[in-house]
Amino acid sequence: MEKVLRINVKTKDINYEDTPMEYLQTGGRGLIAKILLKEVKPTCEPLGKNNKLIFATGLLTGTNVSSASRLSIGAKSPLTGGIKESNAGGIMALRLAQIGLKALIIEDIPDDDKWYYIKISKENCSFEPADKYIEMGTFDFCTEMLNEYPDSAVSCIGPAGERLYSASGIATMDKDKKPNRYSGRGGLGAVMGSKKIKGVVVIDKGTVKIENNEQYMKSLKEYTKILSEAPSSLNFKKLGTASVVRTTQSLNGLPVNNFSGDLLEEDIVDNIYGETLYEVISKRGGEGRTYHSCMPGCVIQCSNVFPDENGKTIVSPLEYETIGLLGPNLGITNLDVIAKLNAVCNDIGVDTIEIGAAIGVAMEAGIAKFGDVDAAFELMEEIKKGTILGRVLGNGATITGKVLGVINVPAVNGQAMPAYDPRAIKGMGVTYSTSPMGADHTYGPIVKCDKSFVESSNEAQIKMAIIDSLGFCMFVRAAIGANYKVLVDLINGRYGWNKDVDWVLNLAKETISDEHKFNELAGFSNVNYHMPECFTEREISNLKTSFDVNVDELNELVSLYKW
Amino acid sequence: MEKVLRINVKTKDINYEDTPMEYLQTGGRGLIAKILLKEVKPTCEPLGKNNKLIFATGLLTGTNVSSASRLSIGAKSPLTGGIKESNAGGIMALRLAQIGLKALIIEDIPDDDKWYYIKISKENCSFEPADKYIEMGTFDFCTEMLNEYPDSAVSCIGPAGERLYSASGIATMDKDKKPNRYSGRGGLGAVMGSKKIKGVVVIDKGTVKIENNEQYMKSLKEYTKILSEAPSSLNFKKLGTASVVRTTQSLNGLPVNNFSGDLLEEDIVDNIYGETLYEVISKRGGEGRTYHSCMPGCVIQCSNVFPDENGKTIVSPLEYETIGLLGPNLGITNLDVIAKLNAVCNDIGVDTIEIGAAIGVAMEAGIAKFGDVDAAFELMEEIKKGTILGRVLGNGATITGKVLGVINVPAVNGQAMPAYDPRAIKGMGVTYSTSPMGADHTYGPIVKCDKSFVESSNEAQIKMAIIDSLGFCMFVRAAIGANYKVLVDLINGRYGWNKDVDWVLNLAKETISDEHKFNELAGFSNVNYHMPECFTEREISNLKTSFDVNVDELNELVSLYKW
Repeated sequence: MEKVLRINVKTKDINYEDTPMEYLQTGGRGLIAKILLKEVKPTCEPLGKNNKLIFATGLLTGTNVSSASRLSIGAKSPLTGGIKESNAGGIMALRLAQIGLKALIIEDIPDDDKWYYIKISKENCSFEPADKYIEMGTFDFCTEMLNEYPDSAVSCIGPAGERLYSASGIATMDKDKKPNRYSGRGGLGAVMGSKKIKGVVVIDKGTVKIENNEQYMKSLKEYTKILSEAPSSLNFKKLGTASVVRTTQSLNGLPVNNFSGDLLEEDIVDNIYGETLYEVISKRGGEGRTYHSCMPGCVIQCSNVFPDENGKTIVSPLEYETIGLLGPNLGITNLDVIAKLNAVCNDIGVDTIEIGAAIGVAMEAGIAKFGDVDAAFELMEEIKKGTILGRVLGNGATITGKVLGVINVPAVNGQAMPAYDPRAIKGMGVTYSTSPMGADHTYGPIVKCDKSFVESSNEAQIKMAIIDSLGFCMFVRAAIGANYKVLVDLINGRYGWNKDVDWVLNLAKETISDEHKFNELAGFSNVNYHMPECFTEREISNLKTSFDVNVDELNELVSLYKW
Repeated sequence: MEKVLRINVKTKDINYEDTPMEYLQTGGRGLIAKILLKEVKPTCEPLGKNNKLIFATGLLTGTNVSSASRLSIGAKSPLTGGIKESNAGGIMALRLAQIGLKALIIEDIPDDDKWYYIKISKENCSFEPADKYIEMGTFDFCTEMLNEYPDSAVSCIGPAGERLYSASGIATMDKDKKPNRYSGRGGLGAVMGSKKIKGVVVIDKGTVKIENNEQYMKSLKEYTKILSEAPSSLNFKKLGTASVVRTTQSLNGLPVNNFSGDLLEEDIVDNIYGETLYEVISKRGGEGRTYHSCMPGCVIQCSNVFPDENGKTIVSPLEYETIGLLGPNLGITNLDVIAKLNAVCNDIGVDTIEIGAAIGVAMEAGIAKFGDVDAAFELMEEIKKGTILGRVLGNGATITGKVLGVINVPAVNGQAMPAYDPRAIKGMGVTYSTSPMGADHTYGPIVKCDKSFVESSNEAQIKMAIIDSLGFCMFVRAAIGANYKVLVDLINGRYGWNKDVDWVLNLAKETISDEHKFNELAGFSNVNYHMPECFTEREISNLKTSFDVNVDELNELVSLYKW
């Protein structure tokens, strides 16, 4: 049976525990919610000794099921003060599952100022001194680890997490051994930093056991066919998430100049369309890749490698949210610039969404002009260096707005919005304002609604709770639709269980319910999730509309998940 | 009948309204709660168009009753996100009441960047251009106003309020025409700044009508005798609030080096005892005053004027909370230094408690060493200039902790603690963690408890709700004890009413209930009021105790006021 590895950074105790019954039949985000609700005091100080940092694997993680090995990382968030799970691709979850670990739980905070990284092998776990790696970017740290452990998988923080920035994330190596995959949201890097852990390094490989191989292989074949033939997968393979630029632009929902509601001229937005990205990568060649997978065996391959004019990698991947937030949201529409800003974020270890939003707010405050590329790089340098302004920005859009006296802050519950203006894309606005994680598109992504905004968001939320708890990538959702049976069959094959679709639907609802429960115990009420006035009272002038979804309807949606 | 003056800073509309029935029979803090609950959307953006800034007079304000003309200012707080009332002495409330105004309500935010001050005469109210006064300290602004209107009363903001600092207050002239009295807490200066109002100036005087003179005169005589003969009044007259230093030191409750729990050596704390303050002022003479009244006719005269060695005023008054927060909390035990830091705060327009706590947090972060006087003045200069660090500090202790990565932040609900360590003075800790206003000693000041901490705090909270709503100074409370009858008789005389003590007790409970209700509608639950872990989990080493009052008991206290 998979174990839970529990380590205490104060006592340096290391324990391998049998996975408790209640943790066994869930995974990823669902498991994070269960552990937090059972083990962490909801009112605790996020950067204090009572918070726990959890790495959780999904139910199919470690198998050869495509796109099923997302790493879920969770804790009480220092950004929102509520529950947080943020998942990423790459190879860490795979490795943890393959050496028999269901979850890693990092507890307490140390008494002294010594830093460590956690080394995990098949048989062992140890604290290794990491003082010499402090202030090191994520790329250099991974290089150091690879020098020491050539075939390791690494998750780590950059200087941002060390400095407890609320916008800091945790980077995880992709299959090419670069720390490009991000559990970016909610300040989880700061939680790791508060525990003085620079990284987690898994040096061994293994395999997971398939209990019912016949069932498994049959379902795997069916699943892989659905996934590889789905139009959504083909589209993601070609244009990646950047394809979304065209959609949001057409809806006037692409953020421009700190979510001003302005619409980009067509000849300008053309510079950042997914098709343009595809052309630039194709033309430049070299290390560039129009499609690329973050974990081995992924058939979607939505990722890309964006090269400079000499074909050398600038960043991988360049994705929609980053293009939106570090691009037009800052008045910038040059893919090279956006890619370079993205690369700096990855190395410092900050969330591109939160930082893009924070710089947008700072530009509105007059710290720099929208579109001033040099200023954007200078601000990024401040974040990297940890100057006072850098620390302000590194703590996200809400703190930046407070400090600089800006009330137009695109955030809900302290967390910045992804690149969908909720006045134009109201279903996503419903997700922002009912999610227990703050504004988060992945909590229930919905751009075009065929039902009411609230119903559409709710359906998307349930789907994502399934996807996130099983350990799948969110782009599987677009391919399989509501065909959860194939996912359940895969799980039945893997574990020799006999679950049905109702089981997985219940798992989703229980996950959402657990998350809201944690937040309620942490002091949140529905009201905390409300959309800020700059979106409810300020119209998008072209559309003549604000975010006007009825608050009672939003509250009703949250109330569905009251236990 | 007294009017409500309602002005809109966007439309420039000015309306004198008959006071609605529900506002008539309360005043001060009680009236603020009623108006906010009725007129302001609890979820509104505190610095946005839906918040209102309210000046309210007490029920006996404008009469010659001693210590009964506090000015209550209220709004939704940008510091805590909850309800806020902060009252101060001085002459503004008196003048408003004397020209027939029960309250002033300032609404909306302007479309443009033009600043105004509000000029109010007996017959008229107007917006007067104030662009030329921007970035001007409160003292110079008052001097300018006195040049223009020699006998005016002024309330105003300094640069801090203009820059929307969450630690900014609103200064009000004392009877000597200096803006020394502060509605300091909760960032009300920023609310005024968001409305682009630099000051409120009342240029006329008047008198209030006494409906039952016989009753009034009889009660006045009784009241004045009680107040002037009370030992507490005599003590406040001699040593002022600085007398509290000895009490909190004896309990190990004086904040030292960012509420570390350390105890000052006796020869060091001797420098800041009330007796020392008294001796220094007496010895230096000149403009110095060991007792001083902030409003005409006060028989307590707890205020003082602290002079430099040449007898020239440094600051007036120098009070306990400021001594604690800008003194030992920063490792500073020199009254001259504390007085000078206080004077800068008053001129910039910031709350000495919040700024002292913020600088303490910054010192813990290593921005400067505890006890470094030059650094303290430099930090104050940053706040004054509005540098990024200054803006961080100007937004208070909680934001400063976030930005600088410090988790030991002495604040509840976003507002910094006054100078009573809640681990040593647990009754006050109960008040901090049940007050809807954030950590606030004036919400229910209790140092020595003869009942349980929770009961004692609750009694203090009810007493203060009475005192604050009638418009009295909190030091009246110490003199009259539970003899509310004399206060009610005064009110009956003033208005020709026939109220009894139950009425005033109900008024108090209704006020507290209204305040909790506003907060609940704003998204707060009891849990939001919780004491941070640095006080519940970190013991004061000498006392071997943390703040350990049971959370359920705290919640029960708040639940008493559920409507």
